[in-house]
Amino acid sequence: MTNPLRLGIAGLGTVGAGVVKIVQTHADLLAARGGRPIRIVAVSARSRGRERGVALDAYAWEDDPVALARRDDFDVLLELMGGEDGPAKAAVEAAIETGKHVVTANKAMLAHHGQAMAEAAEARGVALRYEAAVAGGIPIVKALGEGLAANGIRRVMGVMNGTCNYILTEMQARGADYAEVLEEAQRLGYAEADPSFDVGGVDAAHKLALLAALGFGTRVDFAGVQTEGIDRVTLTDIAHAEDMGYRIKLLGVASMSEAGLEQRMTPCLVPVDSALGRLAGVTNAVMVEGDFVGATHYEGPGAGEGPTASAVMADVLDIARGLIGPAFGAPAASLTAAPRAADAGAAAYYLRMSLHDAPGTLAKVAAALGEEGVSIRQMRQYDHEGGAAPAIFMTHPTSRAALDGALGRLGGMKECLDQPMALRVETV
Amino acid sequence: MTNPLRLGIAGLGTVGAGVVKIVQTHADLLAARGGRPIRIVAVSARSRGRERGVALDAYAWEDDPVALARRDDFDVLLELMGGEDGPAKAAVEAAIETGKHVVTANKAMLAHHGQAMAEAAEARGVALRYEAAVAGGIPIVKALGEGLAANGIRRVMGVMNGTCNYILTEMQARGADYAEVLEEAQRLGYAEADPSFDVGGVDAAHKLALLAALGFGTRVDFAGVQTEGIDRVTLTDIAHAEDMGYRIKLLGVASMSEAGLEQRMTPCLVPVDSALGRLAGVTNAVMVEGDFVGATHYEGPGAGEGPTASAVMADVLDIARGLIGPAFGAPAASLTAAPRAADAGAAAYYLRMSLHDAPGTLAKVAAALGEEGVSIRQMRQYDHEGGAAPAIFMTHPTSRAALDGALGRLGGMKECLDQPMALRVETV
Repeated sequence: MTNPLRLGIAGLGTVGAGVVKIVQTHADLLAARGGRPIRIVAVSARSRGRERGVALDAYAWEDDPVALARRDDFDVLLELMGGEDGPAKAAVEAAIETGKHVVTANKAMLAHHGQAMAEAAEARGVALRYEAAVAGGIPIVKALGEGLAANGIRRVMGVMNGTCNYILTEMQARGADYAEVLEEAQRLGYAEADPSFDVGGVDAAHKLALLAALGFGTRVDFAGVQTEGIDRVTLTDIAHAEDMGYRIKLLGVASMSEAGLEQRMTPCLVPVDSALGRLAGVTNAVMVEGDFVGATHYEGPGAGEGPTASAVMADVLDIARGLIGPAFGAPAASLTAAPRAADAGAAAYYLRMSLHDAPGTLAKVAAALGEEGVSIRQMRQYDHEGGAAPAIFMTHPTSRAALDGALGRLGGMKECLDQPMALRVETV
Repeated sequence: MTNPLRLGIAGLGTVGAGVVKIVQTHADLLAARGGRPIRIVAVSARSRGRERGVALDAYAWEDDPVALARRDDFDVLLELMGGEDGPAKAAVEAAIETGKHVVTANKAMLAHHGQAMAEAAEARGVALRYEAAVAGGIPIVKALGEGLAANGIRRVMGVMNGTCNYILTEMQARGADYAEVLEEAQRLGYAEADPSFDVGGVDAAHKLALLAALGFGTRVDFAGVQTEGIDRVTLTDIAHAEDMGYRIKLLGVASMSEAGLEQRMTPCLVPVDSALGRLAGVTNAVMVEGDFVGATHYEGPGAGEGPTASAVMADVLDIARGLIGPAFGAPAASLTAAPRAADAGAAAYYLRMSLHDAPGTLAKVAAALGEEGVSIRQMRQYDHEGGAAPAIFMTHPTSRAALDGALGRLGGMKECLDQPMALRVETV
């Protein structure tokens, strides 16, 4: 039997505890599949005493994750603390510096420091892997970076935040409003006490930025992701979308064209009867289009102890088997800084606005849209409530520039009582 | 730049031509992602002159695939000829013997000789990889063998034959009968001139046997797959299933329990609104359940030039990166010969039979079912046609043993005019 692969674990929250459980439950299986025994040597967490449902006595303890990362008695650091900077970043840097492989579930850290960390890991000849950072238990990093690696990737698209999808699904299914469902999601542990990373789209945008880098061979460009949360989506929007044959999803889309790399994480309308439209609850789904393979679709649990720990350990097994390739599928130095392209393609949009209930208002709005080059496919106006009449427009495909022109102009009209909201209708 | 990885291709049909196209189209991409240039050195096929839409002048030609496999100027043999024995097997054996890695799309060969070939490859220290053998462009071998490798796999299930799914989809959608749609599938190139491997379930059973070995760490046991084709499925069955909320799919299910390994590739009823029920046309889908990850779902093109070549080249890139692990995820010597378990769990069944149209017939049939322990949930009898009355039963969950007892007894009754057909209702 070859030497065991020795692990140090920084962070013993949900994911860390799950990893310990897998290692303890599946020792034989992991040894057979990894070609060598997998052993935990040392661990680190904020609180030593906390009950985690796993025995930790056999492992060395470190209070400081950086001290853990610098130990000389293990081979792979599992960074499962989270946080884009601070101890997580310091521990990963220390691990790479001391010649250890790194497996992390930390999308925020990689979205900000992925390029630098990939360069450092390559220079040191160690692996930097992050299957668990994107779409939980779905092996999408592996599918995109290895399984579809012979393709020119055209588009990566998906629902990558279970909290948002849970909220939107429940709003649609029960007619419950945003605040009510968010509170419930927090009670069930789906949403953090500070939900802004989730509902604001930032968490999902982190993930999209990683998949884009991997798929397109570009440098991680999180700042280039056009990000919009779900907090402005109302029950009205959900009901109108449903009525027109659509569901609203927080949808990530990354695509490469001559104009450059387009990255969006925004609420979009997708057909009710599409795979993404049907996606309910906390499940994640990712669709990848390649020039030879065509469209492939991946679905599964996007978070949780078991799924995330499964992804972490898949990376560990790859390292055990000797897979020490570059983090983003190609040498870090070869990753290009692609120009940013905003909404390169034309799309239909759903518009919602509140209009002053007076003769001629609708004509003025319609004229403004037309003059900006935005053509209307469907329009609905409803009974007014206290002088304000809600109006819904579905446009024909239009460029984002024309739409922005129209939105700007409408926003400045006295007939328009609020800033109009626009949601893209995505082709899936 | 490190040494190029040199390929020899045996077989230049649809898949082989697709592989040549990828190598010629994506030279830079493959070099970046594989960490070294990928070069075709020599090729072999039955007809040298045939137009394949790709330039082959730069490659050495061999008439004999075994002579190709024995050349000493390349590193990886791509076996893309097909056929469970004969030249394909001989070429693979010659390649392994002469120290070459093997990538194959040949499910029939591996279903029969996978264990011996895996042992030979391991003994010689070369890779034997077969992503293209199962579910075309979907990287399911990678997902199951690597992405979910930290899990105890509980069940692998899927629709893995595009031809059958196309036929069943078209029968359902257009009310066209089996023979008509089969002829159309042959015209479109979806089905072979001899369709028996497809519609008989054998092709899909080959694939299931490979996934089962990979998922459960067992020796490939193709003979242990309970296989039934779709040729007995009628429009009547499809219409009744639809009416009761089900679609009929040629569904593969492999699961491991205390009783042993259960492998089935049979037409089953699945809920209309499930992911598998909605699967239309030639698309494939596979669902994998693991003890930590839960259920994950994979969908994409199951055949065709681009998708299959994409899968072949993913294996080539893995070899370029140095991934030379055992073929079935664990050392071949460690793969166990699991006992065969037939239909270990209880299930509901759809029964169709033709009854003699006479007083008391139905009572006798119902009594026979009851006495064998099969309880009826729904029953429909229709206007008789020339003395024969078609009858449809949906049972409550029952063991396969009880069902077989009932079927045997019904088959022997003079009131039963044909051998009753039973389709399992699968829980998805």
